[in-house]
Amino acid sequence: MSTDTATPRTATPEDDGVTDATHAPGGSPATGGFDPAAMTRLLDGRYAEVRALVRSNLAEYASVLEDAETMSRADYRERVKDIVLEMAATGQTGMGFPEEYGGGGDIGASVAAFETLALGDLSVLVKTGVQFGLFGGAIQQLGTKRHHDAYLRPLITGELLGCFAMSETGHGSNVQALDTTATYDADTEEFVLHTPTEQGGKDYIGNAAQHGEVAVVFAQLHVGGEGHGVHAFVVPIRSGGEACAGVRIEDDGLKMGLNGVDNGRLWFDQVRVPRDALLDRFASVSADGAYSSPIENPNRRFFTMLGTLITGRVCVGGAGINAAKVALAVAVKYGLRRRQFEAASKDEEQLVLDYGMHQRRLFPRLARGYAMHFAQEALAAELHTVLTDQVEDDTRRRELETMAAGIKALGTWHATDTIQECREACGGAGYLAVNRFPALKADTDVFTTFEGDNHVLLQLVAKGLLTNYAEEFEDLDSLGMARFVAGMAVDTVVERTSVHKLLERLRGVLPGGDDEGVEGVRDTDYHLTMLRFREEHQVGGVARRLKRGIDAGGNPGVVFSEVQDHVIAAARSHVQRVVLEAFVDKVRGLPEGELRDALQLLCDLHALCTIEDDRAWFMEHGRLSAPRSKAVSREVNALCRRVRPLAEAYVDGFGVPPEMLRAPALVDAYANATRTAPGETH
Amino acid sequence: MSTDTATPRTATPEDDGVTDATHAPGGSPATGGFDPAAMTRLLDGRYAEVRALVRSNLAEYASVLEDAETMSRADYRERVKDIVLEMAATGQTGMGFPEEYGGGGDIGASVAAFETLALGDLSVLVKTGVQFGLFGGAIQQLGTKRHHDAYLRPLITGELLGCFAMSETGHGSNVQALDTTATYDADTEEFVLHTPTEQGGKDYIGNAAQHGEVAVVFAQLHVGGEGHGVHAFVVPIRSGGEACAGVRIEDDGLKMGLNGVDNGRLWFDQVRVPRDALLDRFASVSADGAYSSPIENPNRRFFTMLGTLITGRVCVGGAGINAAKVALAVAVKYGLRRRQFEAASKDEEQLVLDYGMHQRRLFPRLARGYAMHFAQEALAAELHTVLTDQVEDDTRRRELETMAAGIKALGTWHATDTIQECREACGGAGYLAVNRFPALKADTDVFTTFEGDNHVLLQLVAKGLLTNYAEEFEDLDSLGMARFVAGMAVDTVVERTSVHKLLERLRGVLPGGDDEGVEGVRDTDYHLTMLRFREEHQVGGVARRLKRGIDAGGNPGVVFSEVQDHVIAAARSHVQRVVLEAFVDKVRGLPEGELRDALQLLCDLHALCTIEDDRAWFMEHGRLSAPRSKAVSREVNALCRRVRPLAEAYVDGFGVPPEMLRAPALVDAYANATRTAPGETH
Repeated sequence: MSTDTATPRTATPEDDGVTDATHAPGGSPATGGFDPAAMTRLLDGRYAEVRALVRSNLAEYASVLEDAETMSRADYRERVKDIVLEMAATGQTGMGFPEEYGGGGDIGASVAAFETLALGDLSVLVKTGVQFGLFGGAIQQLGTKRHHDAYLRPLITGELLGCFAMSETGHGSNVQALDTTATYDADTEEFVLHTPTEQGGKDYIGNAAQHGEVAVVFAQLHVGGEGHGVHAFVVPIRSGGEACAGVRIEDDGLKMGLNGVDNGRLWFDQVRVPRDALLDRFASVSADGAYSSPIENPNRRFFTMLGTLITGRVCVGGAGINAAKVALAVAVKYGLRRRQFEAASKDEEQLVLDYGMHQRRLFPRLARGYAMHFAQEALAAELHTVLTDQVEDDTRRRELETMAAGIKALGTWHATDTIQECREACGGAGYLAVNRFPALKADTDVFTTFEGDNHVLLQLVAKGLLTNYAEEFEDLDSLGMARFVAGMAVDTVVERTSVHKLLERLRGVLPGGDDEGVEGVRDTDYHLTMLRFREEHQVGGVARRLKRGIDAGGNPGVVFSEVQDHVIAAARSHVQRVVLEAFVDKVRGLPEGELRDALQLLCDLHALCTIEDDRAWFMEHGRLSAPRSKAVSREVNALCRRVRPLAEAYVDGFGVPPEMLRAPALVDAYANATRTAPGETH
Repeated sequence: MSTDTATPRTATPEDDGVTDATHAPGGSPATGGFDPAAMTRLLDGRYAEVRALVRSNLAEYASVLEDAETMSRADYRERVKDIVLEMAATGQTGMGFPEEYGGGGDIGASVAAFETLALGDLSVLVKTGVQFGLFGGAIQQLGTKRHHDAYLRPLITGELLGCFAMSETGHGSNVQALDTTATYDADTEEFVLHTPTEQGGKDYIGNAAQHGEVAVVFAQLHVGGEGHGVHAFVVPIRSGGEACAGVRIEDDGLKMGLNGVDNGRLWFDQVRVPRDALLDRFASVSADGAYSSPIENPNRRFFTMLGTLITGRVCVGGAGINAAKVALAVAVKYGLRRRQFEAASKDEEQLVLDYGMHQRRLFPRLARGYAMHFAQEALAAELHTVLTDQVEDDTRRRELETMAAGIKALGTWHATDTIQECREACGGAGYLAVNRFPALKADTDVFTTFEGDNHVLLQLVAKGLLTNYAEEFEDLDSLGMARFVAGMAVDTVVERTSVHKLLERLRGVLPGGDDEGVEGVRDTDYHLTMLRFREEHQVGGVARRLKRGIDAGGNPGVVFSEVQDHVIAAARSHVQRVVLEAFVDKVRGLPEGELRDALQLLCDLHALCTIEDDRAWFMEHGRLSAPRSKAVSREVNALCRRVRPLAEAYVDGFGVPPEMLRAPALVDAYANATRTAPGETH
């Protein structure tokens, strides 16, 4: 085991250990350790300039945070639309589109811009996502040149607003089972779009209730009596503010949040569109009704189509991670201002951030916020490369899809959990709209459902792990997966993950188990090894359980249902391992110095919290002794105390524009410090 | 160990174990097992009639759920006020007041009424709580006959609306440190109320922004230059809709939820009130300025005053527990309607409630909902007895206060957690206002902060445990407690909880530890013993750590801060033990039959989930072997499968009026079944 990484790494002026006990925490906190502005530059990375543009746009339209509270829903929707169009004019929202249509030609930049926008009003964010990510992305990815020529330029400027009409009332996660149909009529060379059932109405569709003029509609294609699965069509839905003939539109009404976005429902009654309305990159229908596609297998075709829309998933995860930064910044700053109860001193009440429990509530989430940021950065970079270079390597594309699903799930849960804890940490003040949490909480809540329910996405992750991203990957629904795993691929997985093999590989690296000591508890290689062991063990276990159940003659679906919590756990372990590796890689790649020290401290805290959260599993599987498990918890507490004097610098490092923090009474005393950081990065 | 309780206990038609694997869960669920209406009668208990009245009032004013979404904030506030007054006219809100003033003279009934009201619009609930619980309760408990004569009758009818002005911007949980002053002027025989600082303004005060005419104001009493601590005064704040002279009022503005309640801020600028404005049950000031009190110790006096207001805490916990029932009912019913993905069958998509993971998400929370209900019932009964019989036993009163704090904390966290999980389990539909979750989530969010931040309340619980409810109990802030524990009482606690003693007492009852087997994993005595062991061990551990730290010369406040997570864990363990005991007592007291079987199943599930959640601790402390820990998790899954066919009956048993479920598209297909249950209980 490596020992050099176990030595103290940070520039914090406090020692950990017993001396802390004699250091009165009520005293003035040391804020040194590192330069927050330098941290912001590091976090901004390659796209510092893009992020600076978005921050400046956010500051310019900061009043929308108040408009969200004071305007009627109708006015707020208009206001949000206007802001989106004005931001579009700065180039901020078109960065992912080809330059020949007025875009920026840089997918990574478009993700960075979107993520950063999540520091502000989230209706503006989601309206942007609907127009440029979902609608624009579908035209760009599923369409061909004639669609690009017709739609890209006006949609990039916002002259043409559109919808992405995929989800139906009856079908969200299971897109392959949509009800809406598109039947080709060779006589007129038209497709007939139709909603056969009330539950088949498109639902929760952004831009549908008010502003959208066209929609990319996903429907079951039928040609000459034969079904070809789900395809996408450009369908006019509104003209001059009125629904087009045959289109019924309903407003989704008041939502928990995001009320600046006009979500609605769409039903089609035999609506006819010309033959070239089919977005035909992956399949086309000839004038006389011959269906053709370069991808023969219908399942594979469907998942290839969906795969091109992956950017949306990456963006939602990044948005959750960034929204959580706002909550962390407000709560940490409030904790450095709010005093309550005499504790360490009779003369003065204690800063709430000096309470051990308060640190426990906020700092592990702060550390996870950094971890998720770097994991998201790595994911976005891979997305950029794969899409920009049109990488054809199937395995690599599937790994990217898996990771996009995993980071989206963990990133959005991180947001829900962190925003809630930060609200509670601000007490009654956190309940007032002016202090940001109400909007943050209500608006981000649905992120766990956007782009697929998080549990369904984790199953997708598990699918990749269990099938080794096999060719058959894309054919497998839950049922198919259970059968598949029980059949061919399971032997490989079982072999790869046999406990014997795992232990063999890990010998000499992994302390714990028989080791009662606490040595090396902060060793990064130890953390990585623990998470790798857990992942392999769980994936192998799932495979074996599925195989055993099906070999015993069980219904594959029932077997799967009974193993489902294990499947989800394995997927989560995989994603957590990848997140930690991203954090470790980042830290190890930095030059020595105060930033590296500061990040190593958070990386240690994040790794140990991840292990601590699941220490029951590690004990159950002999990888953690009881004394060592307790040592992990003690170390988490000790690390929290070392984070404490740097806490404000860490949240300032996020570079949240001060206008986005709002919460004047909660963060005011610290506003100067905050204002420095982003200013210096512009 | 008792074995007879380990045999199957329920009338469910399914066996657990391997046979489940061959039973296709997509088939029509068995709904038998027990009669939901009988369950509702059982849950309603002694106050079935009161609860029926409230349910019928809720149904009559069901339109307020929609008004909350469609009305302006100003109109909604008026609407809520009107409903509260109309409900008052039915006697529903006055049940806790003496009959001679037009009240119902039954404290238990008033708690039952309030809890049940939480099934509906929560602004109506909180406005009711402000007027009758907080304002009315303060007049009743802190005042004497002249105050009762002057105020009780008009406040019970709602003719006089009032505020409970305790919290300040700068002080919430630490009430003893309030800034507002009340200085006695013997020359005019008046108290002068004054807010010396901006942060000393009363904040988050319900009824303050619009409707309140008087306020019970908590202020530091100064008489003849001497401070006597916090006392309460009746102060006119508004007349004819205008703020009284010297009173500055500000609206708290938009909140996350509860926007039908007019929360506001109050500042006093040398406001004079007559001498009899002091609520003088516990202290009085003579005309010439002599202060006297039957309770000599100022701290003790303060906590005795606060102690009389305990009903509010009991009510908030009960409200959280009941609000969570609404979320569980909607989510379970939706899970029985929503199908997604073919899993067990190629012909039909699977009901989402048949997925193992979905059961894992909802059923432990369903079981906890029942557990919390019975714990709350026991708490409310004890409250009723202690207050009605004016029990003088100090230890019993302190135990009641401790338990009120503990159930409030766990009950409101249960609400936050359950509502969130249920929302996510309903996907995008859960995000729409019409489907109830947005209001449930936003309105209940602040319950974790009401009546004291939950972490502060758990510290209060720990205080009781650590000091054995000693005489000094009430003198101890965090600082004092650390010193006290390190001093006198710790030896008792340490002695009582020495591991040796614990093991001695538990020998022969507690399997596990050395026992690798799974025998008796569903034995109720085993569950109870596990939770008792954990509590005693943790309480003893905290006491020893505090003593060690202070003996080593540490600053008591710092020592306390470092042990704080352990303190909170011990308190939580205590409350969880009490909750489980309440559930077990309830089940054991029932006659044999289908209701008892059904509740035993949930009780088992709740107990095992509680152990599973903290299985790391049990393993760390040698009370659970790794194989047995895994057996606990397997058993939880098996119990979830047995709960599945009864799930709808369990949520129907809650007796939520169908009008309160709303969510037409989510629960419609099951509305008939729902409508039966409450109807039969009226």
